[in-house]
Amino acid sequence: MQNIDILIKNCTILTMKQKEPIKNGIIAIKNGKITFVGKERKKDNFKTEREIDAKFKVALPGLINCHTHVAMTIFRGTAEDKELNSWLKEKIWPLEAKLKPEDVYHGTLLGCLEMIKTGTTCFVDMYFYEDAVAKAVKELGLRAVLAPGILSTGLSTSGQQMLESAVEIYRKFHGTASGRLNVWFGPHAVYSCDKQTLISVMEAAKKLNTGLHIHLAESAEMAEKIRLELGISEVGLLHEIGFLAKNVLAAHCIHLSKNDIELLARHNVKIVYNPVANMKLAQGTAKIKEMLDFGITVGLGTDGPASNNSLDMFETMKIAALLQKLTYKDPRVLPAWQVLKMATVDAAKALGLESEIGSIEAGKKADIILLDFKKPHLTPIHDFYANIVYSARGSDVDTVIVNGKVLMENREVIVANEEEIIRKAEKTALDIVNR
Amino acid sequence: MQNIDILIKNCTILTMKQKEPIKNGIIAIKNGKITFVGKERKKDNFKTEREIDAKFKVALPGLINCHTHVAMTIFRGTAEDKELNSWLKEKIWPLEAKLKPEDVYHGTLLGCLEMIKTGTTCFVDMYFYEDAVAKAVKELGLRAVLAPGILSTGLSTSGQQMLESAVEIYRKFHGTASGRLNVWFGPHAVYSCDKQTLISVMEAAKKLNTGLHIHLAESAEMAEKIRLELGISEVGLLHEIGFLAKNVLAAHCIHLSKNDIELLARHNVKIVYNPVANMKLAQGTAKIKEMLDFGITVGLGTDGPASNNSLDMFETMKIAALLQKLTYKDPRVLPAWQVLKMATVDAAKALGLESEIGSIEAGKKADIILLDFKKPHLTPIHDFYANIVYSARGSDVDTVIVNGKVLMENREVIVANEEEIIRKAEKTALDIVNR
Repeated sequence: MQNIDILIKNCTILTMKQKEPIKNGIIAIKNGKITFVGKERKKDNFKTEREIDAKFKVALPGLINCHTHVAMTIFRGTAEDKELNSWLKEKIWPLEAKLKPEDVYHGTLLGCLEMIKTGTTCFVDMYFYEDAVAKAVKELGLRAVLAPGILSTGLSTSGQQMLESAVEIYRKFHGTASGRLNVWFGPHAVYSCDKQTLISVMEAAKKLNTGLHIHLAESAEMAEKIRLELGISEVGLLHEIGFLAKNVLAAHCIHLSKNDIELLARHNVKIVYNPVANMKLAQGTAKIKEMLDFGITVGLGTDGPASNNSLDMFETMKIAALLQKLTYKDPRVLPAWQVLKMATVDAAKALGLESEIGSIEAGKKADIILLDFKKPHLTPIHDFYANIVYSARGSDVDTVIVNGKVLMENREVIVANEEEIIRKAEKTALDIVNR
Repeated sequence: MQNIDILIKNCTILTMKQKEPIKNGIIAIKNGKITFVGKERKKDNFKTEREIDAKFKVALPGLINCHTHVAMTIFRGTAEDKELNSWLKEKIWPLEAKLKPEDVYHGTLLGCLEMIKTGTTCFVDMYFYEDAVAKAVKELGLRAVLAPGILSTGLSTSGQQMLESAVEIYRKFHGTASGRLNVWFGPHAVYSCDKQTLISVMEAAKKLNTGLHIHLAESAEMAEKIRLELGISEVGLLHEIGFLAKNVLAAHCIHLSKNDIELLARHNVKIVYNPVANMKLAQGTAKIKEMLDFGITVGLGTDGPASNNSLDMFETMKIAALLQKLTYKDPRVLPAWQVLKMATVDAAKALGLESEIGSIEAGKKADIILLDFKKPHLTPIHDFYANIVYSARGSDVDTVIVNGKVLMENREVIVANEEEIIRKAEKTALDIVNR
């Protein structure tokens, strides 16, 4: 008999390694890792004081949000139904100019709370003051890839200075919080970083063996501007300087030529598809089917809460599928199972964390969510994957476990005072607007 | 001092008559109707034993789902990621051929439960056995427009027989359940009804002074087929036989020419926009902005749960806005306030019920929902309408009142045994598949 920390029992398990659900399953967790996944009849092999009865519940790997600016929760609703340019220049940038680290901290706590309550266990964040983000993530128990934003235009700080500060954050936080924190670098975009900055950031990442997160081909206007000024596409420019590589995670990738897609595929660049924000800001539709056909790894992202305005990955999964079906005029494109892979196993691959997270398998970290399926909108169960992608909402998440620690149970967040986080974030948000 | 039945107090009220929220508001309800809406300081004018404290809550008119086939909840997940043709012919029609009235009853109870839990207080339904639907709606306390489906092709029953049965349902249920039930006729579509059937149904509706609900220009393939066979568009054909009129509510309206739109506008035909199902079945995008510019009244619908797969109108509102923004490449199209109007006041107009429902006003029926705004994803409150349309989910609905009767409070459904409905619907669903 094996001593373990937590036993989840009576469970339907969608491991995302295999398509066939495990019914009447159990999951054993010890020292933050999954040590066994299998049938109920093996239950007596394990000894624990902490059992979670998952009757009528479905276990999934925790969802992974591959692109957000989580602290922007505090700007949710400040700049609605506006063009990207006026959204940025008239609303978001003036607000961001007033940001202090403690605002980012409170905004991140709020966003982490929302993520826990909607089943996201890991996210990729690009923003200012990522040290304040790290502090909040550490406290709330989530896993994250933090990519301090680096820009060389439009700010008083130079690209070089921002890179230095990012390296400092890397040294301070990478691999900390029991391995829950990873630090990458976040060169903001081709249009907001000059060539030398892109090269310096790329070289710093190479030296430290870490990843790069960048916005790519989001806006048709910006893509066209670069093409006119430099005579090359955004992807072409990155290729020219040797930036494209397997450690690059590129968000959006809407305005790409076939040649651009081939370049991304050849260099094993990973893509984040952000359907909700792309629709809300009317930027266009990424050609995800073509990217998948080229063998590109695609994850899903919500983008920041000021342009979505939600961090609910269940919503993003549904809209991700709907938008591709509509775009290709074919309802068979992006079936439910494939979308759920994009939010779990494929996302883990996009983050270079495929040996640690993304599926429920012995040996992986215990990042697991339980969905309560005893709900009218999840009845009947003809197809688990369809119910999860097309009918479930973040509010169906009952239990969240990250690194073997229970963050939420019966929708009760254990690791934080929910009311206090909401109150402080509300105060911060109103304060910034009036600052 | 006035004796009333229910007083809702401490409330932020979005009446949808005016854009400005009423803060610290109260709503007085008596005999199923709203008798007063206004400021807290008038509270002492009213006397009641039933007060609802709505602190941190936002009152809205109940949402109106203008197009569904609610009993299809039992088929949810049976036919996923398929083309419309094989979805219908290989999956849905064979299942529907096995349907019995009690299946429709149990499926409708499940759907009504889902609607109550997501803030829909009124819906338009087109299906078989609408008498079984009526029974379920009556029991669960919702308001509905029931449009018994009428087809003249593909079934053993003739169009004339189906019309006769629809008239019978009209006589039995129209205006019953304290006025909560309305019966219209539901000629299924131009491609599934022959001309004589369309004319007979139209005349029957005229005679009884009731409405008509029809699928229109949903499938490009069907629209093209009619054009080739008859040399006219679906709208053109309806115009020719005098069908187009203010009592017609047409669902989908995707494949329309400018001339078609002009005809619909001229005859004051009402439209239902079903963005989720249209995307999921890859049928295309209705040109809602153009229709609104023509002054057409547009409501929102989920369509049936087998092609959505949800009855959550909050999700439909968000996707409705996103899809129009993307289609017109303009994030300013369909702002949050306008979308919420489409789910409330405009929907009421589409149903010809604008004097009864759709807004929170003295004199109207008390169909009211309360949203719990003390949630991380609804923080901060910079913009009530943006929070409701872009961040809220059906699960944020706390209290539902229809015709002055509380159906749900603190998310507890009062009028039904939720577990029993779920259990019976699950059983029905599995039984049909194996029948």
